[in-house]
Amino acid sequence: MSSDPGPVPRVSRQEFDALFAEVRTWGRWEPADRGAWNRVTPEHVRRAAALVRDGTAVPLGRPWDTRPGPDNPRPALHHMTDLGDVEPPEPSAHKDFLGADYHGKAVSHLDALSHIAYRGRLYGGRPARGAVGAGGARFGSVAALGPLVTKGVLLDLPAVLGTGWLEPGRAVRAADVLEAERALGTVIDEGCAVLLRTGRFRRRRELGPWDLDAASAGFHVDAVPLLAGRGVALLGADGDGDLRPSPVEGLHSPVHTLAIAAMGVPLLDNLDLEGLSTACAGAGRHTFMLVVAPLDVPGGTGSPVNPVAVL
Amino acid sequence: MSSDPGPVPRVSRQEFDALFAEVRTWGRWEPADRGAWNRVTPEHVRRAAALVRDGTAVPLGRPWDTRPGPDNPRPALHHMTDLGDVEPPEPSAHKDFLGADYHGKAVSHLDALSHIAYRGRLYGGRPARGAVGAGGARFGSVAALGPLVTKGVLLDLPAVLGTGWLEPGRAVRAADVLEAERALGTVIDEGCAVLLRTGRFRRRRELGPWDLDAASAGFHVDAVPLLAGRGVALLGADGDGDLRPSPVEGLHSPVHTLAIAAMGVPLLDNLDLEGLSTACAGAGRHTFMLVVAPLDVPGGTGSPVNPVAVL
Amino acid sequence: MSSDPGPVPRVSRQEFDALFAEVRTWGRWEPADRGAWNRVTPEHVRRAAALVRDGTAVPLGRPWDTRPGPDNPRPALHHMTDLGDVEPPEPSAHKDFLGADYHGKAVSHLDALSHIAYRGRLYGGRPARGAVGAGGARFGSVAALGPLVTKGVLLDLPAVLGTGWLEPGRAVRAADVLEAERALGTVIDEGCAVLLRTGRFRRRRELGPWDLDAASAGFHVDAVPLLAGRGVALLGADGDGDLRPSPVEGLHSPVHTLAIAAMGVPLLDNLDLEGLSTACAGAGRHTFMLVVAPLDVPGGTGSPVNPVAVL
Amino acid sequence: MSSDPGPVPRVSRQEFDALFAEVRTWGRWEPADRGAWNRVTPEHVRRAAALVRDGTAVPLGRPWDTRPGPDNPRPALHHMTDLGDVEPPEPSAHKDFLGADYHGKAVSHLDALSHIAYRGRLYGGRPARGAVGAGGARFGSVAALGPLVTKGVLLDLPAVLGTGWLEPGRAVRAADVLEAERALGTVIDEGCAVLLRTGRFRRRRELGPWDLDAASAGFHVDAVPLLAGRGVALLGADGDGDLRPSPVEGLHSPVHTLAIAAMGVPLLDNLDLEGLSTACAGAGRHTFMLVVAPLDVPGGTGSPVNPVAVL
Repeated sequence: MSSDPGPVPRVSRQEFDALFAEVRTWGRWEPADRGAWNRVTPEHVRRAAALVRDGTAVPLGRPWDTRPGPDNPRPALHHMTDLGDVEPPEPSAHKDFLGADYHGKAVSHLDALSHIAYRGRLYGGRPARGAVGAGGARFGSVAALGPLVTKGVLLDLPAVLGTGWLEPGRAVRAADVLEAERALGTVIDEGCAVLLRTGRFRRRRELGPWDLDAASAGFHVDAVPLLAGRGVALLGADGDGDLRPSPVEGLHSPVHTLAIAAMGVPLLDNLDLEGLSTACAGAGRHTFMLVVAPLDVPGGTGSPVNPVAVL
Repeated sequence: MSSDPGPVPRVSRQEFDALFAEVRTWGRWEPADRGAWNRVTPEHVRRAAALVRDGTAVPLGRPWDTRPGPDNPRPALHHMTDLGDVEPPEPSAHKDFLGADYHGKAVSHLDALSHIAYRGRLYGGRPARGAVGAGGARFGSVAALGPLVTKGVLLDLPAVLGTGWLEPGRAVRAADVLEAERALGTVIDEGCAVLLRTGRFRRRRELGPWDLDAASAGFHVDAVPLLAGRGVALLGADGDGDLRPSPVEGLHSPVHTLAIAAMGVPLLDNLDLEGLSTACAGAGRHTFMLVVAPLDVPGGTGSPVNPVAVL
Repeated sequence: MSSDPGPVPRVSRQEFDALFAEVRTWGRWEPADRGAWNRVTPEHVRRAAALVRDGTAVPLGRPWDTRPGPDNPRPALHHMTDLGDVEPPEPSAHKDFLGADYHGKAVSHLDALSHIAYRGRLYGGRPARGAVGAGGARFGSVAALGPLVTKGVLLDLPAVLGTGWLEPGRAVRAADVLEAERALGTVIDEGCAVLLRTGRFRRRRELGPWDLDAASAGFHVDAVPLLAGRGVALLGADGDGDLRPSPVEGLHSPVHTLAIAAMGVPLLDNLDLEGLSTACAGAGRHTFMLVVAPLDVPGGTGSPVNPVAVL
Repeated sequence: MSSDPGPVPRVSRQEFDALFAEVRTWGRWEPADRGAWNRVTPEHVRRAAALVRDGTAVPLGRPWDTRPGPDNPRPALHHMTDLGDVEPPEPSAHKDFLGADYHGKAVSHLDALSHIAYRGRLYGGRPARGAVGAGGARFGSVAALGPLVTKGVLLDLPAVLGTGWLEPGRAVRAADVLEAERALGTVIDEGCAVLLRTGRFRRRRELGPWDLDAASAGFHVDAVPLLAGRGVALLGADGDGDLRPSPVEGLHSPVHTLAIAAMGVPLLDNLDLEGLSTACAGAGRHTFMLVVAPLDVPGGTGSPVNPVAVL
């Protein structure tokens, strides 16, 4: 892997559609709403639990962010609703309200299969129009996913490259994934969760926030067939996984499109992977048990989450 | 254990204060905000992971409830904010807003140590007035807790009694805990999480919702010294853990008070334990790995959660 | 007018559609978004101001209601966000957040022309599907309405009948309107706002809240051609104006449909008209200057309001 | 009035406290919550209505702003909750949720008397701590104010100066008020509402938004005794009325403090006065009937409003 990866290959819409057809798993599973999470069998859960050796639990969610910024145009809400003076004591109770339009670049969250439609169709081929309305999603709800316990793999690209972070716009390509896998001694296999660290939050702490829609490091679509071939159940990143500017003609989020709409692979966006990077480096391994426990929102297109890696 | 437990013993405020002093652990740990979660060592995490044998993950959170009712006076919000027609395609993105004043009886949530003050003081003795304000909690925030991975124990009282549920107002006393432990073949020990099933959600499905503040099955305070002596890290229930009407003079939530303010033990409220009851009965054991992953809300007094039991 | 008005005449869908065609004003005005508010000329505004004789301003909005109930399934939110301890003093500032899904039966609000579509079409004939989406209304937004100053007429039916209120299910028919007009010495004419008092909030205070969707006093559709013929600009009520159960086959809100979708007449729902009833009785007249000042919400389908009657 | 007004005089805290004592009206009125609105008698209402000559109604509220920016760190919420697909048709209903933490610089709103405390005391001398809590304000709520109908006076400073706007930081001093009054042929007198136009929204449209807390044109405290002497009932502005940086030592909002906490004068913040400026210039007069109709929020510290000027 080189820190100067050369120009990002452009992808035509026709090439993209061929990729989409190549990685598509429509009709493979029941229930279809769980998509690639159907890959995770009890045996995978047991093997994930067996990866716990140090007994260290590392949270991957970032703090609930109520401050606006270039990567947080719809800040989350946090309101205190009782300071011990509303409901009568004793005891006095302190209460709060939380609210968030959590998709975007600021809240750590899971994308369910209803989040993305391509050419008007959700994963499995259902027309989005009939399936998602003001009352929520009738297909692909986060409630259909439930929790996930599986092997997680940290693709710590900055660690491999010996840099603090990948610069915004840096493509993570198939060759990068293979080299990271080798360099970090990890194996991406059936049912696992792949977490891509670009170093976004280290960069953000050092240089300040920026608009990820304008430029962010992320997977180039050429890495997706590799991940599809390995049978991943979940993709996550410290951004939203997508390279921006998008290399695909007329498509703002091609990796979202392939993962969610073609492969049935939910995404974890905006994870803070800095602590996990340190923990993995310390432990000398980049695999761990990952637990993702989305809120059970009927009709929800996803959920804020605080995934936990246990080493 | 008898299905007719006799009258509920009343507790004077003086007796309660003696109990409070008896189970208090103020000053024992650093950081104090994590309270009894400091009991959970890496060794406990490893032993919890070793409890995973079947590879079955059971979610304990109930559905996000937007309908008002006697146990849901402040219904949660779920608003669709993009139906593929706001942000330009392709792909089209579906997005939603979630909001909740989650304390109460409807949302599955974790209470952090800032949630409850007794006689004006939070766990550890800090005056609540200086520590919790409109900007949130400066001590005992849910952000200070982080995630928990530990051994969970299901006290499935209806299973022990051979009933569908405990009637509202039924006290769960020290003797009941001991009998359940024995009958279910479980052991409550240092660092574990105890989950009390009263059958609330089975009763709710069959008979409809009711106001838990008026009557609910829950721990009598006489069970708390037993739990304290075992060194529990977390208490959870399918209600909020407290018996109502409260047996303690002038105190609406005595178990909350003892657990949170005296013992530093966070609480899980409103868990749906019906699925776990079935899974434990099927597996023939009532212990499992429990993972609780609250949102990282700076200054938050708790968090909606969807805890996962893995058998 | 009789307090025993006899059975409510049923209306077939075919009859309703004929009514719809009869009162329809599509294509009459520019801008179409303002509908019947285009009837209110500067001369109407001047004449309304000339109705101010006593100098008494009576608010018609009911209190912001955060408590759930049979007529308030989506309670409004009111959260304190600063108690003088967030932003640094001096001075100390107290701040709050307000939120409401205000359509329904609990918040006093204005319905803009985008609120209702019949047979898929908004006022003027535009297909609703293209005009209203997750980003809001592109036609018939409350922002297009702006404020209204015009003559208001209180149809105080209980005063005419000498009762405290109309019972839920009582139809207000064309003959009732004519008799009320005569008995109260008022004239419904071009550009005026007609406010129907059924006594809902007096009944609610005395007997408690009930589900207005199940039963409410309101206009029968046979009163609408009369109101249309007079050229009203606005209809308001202490309920939502519609009689329930609906007398029209397969249509839950026929008066909403005729007023908004056919006539371009915005509606004011859930006004508290008890104070105005007393003030009008005291003044010996039922006409006044009415000022309605909706929030300027781009794309909004209406707005919470506190209309003011000035006598 | 000069477009180069010279340096802004600094005011010590001691001088400010003397000003506070000078303009204080504590104890003058019952109910105290309505403060200076008690000045507005029925005779004032009648005279205000008599100012309506052209029949032109001009809204002063700015659009509900959901986009973050330097003057909008807590953007308002606007969510569509029904697009005709939630509640069953016919007719189809479109509904939306509105939410705002409306104090600040983005939402046109009214400040009630509970909004500001100085040295821990609200208007009338009540300690703020006991009067305002998480449940809202028990004194000085916007619900106690009700609506206001009175004579409005537009102090159109840029029109007087022949400029597009006042630059941020420009003080509006007593002499400026007197000169504007004379130049515009208006009279500020007992019970009237004074609206200060600085041209903020014209500047914002031409140059973009900026942080008003850092720099804004507004009243210098030396103008306040003049306004107090005239017996104004309400002050409004296209900013928040206060000059920033504050000329008073250790006090971020001295005009808020004097108006609200000393004089009992509510404030209207963030009015868009551009349309009114044009209308007044066209009409050749700067007085009009002003109607302010806040939402009736029990315990609310203010309300979003869309005041209406009628010429």
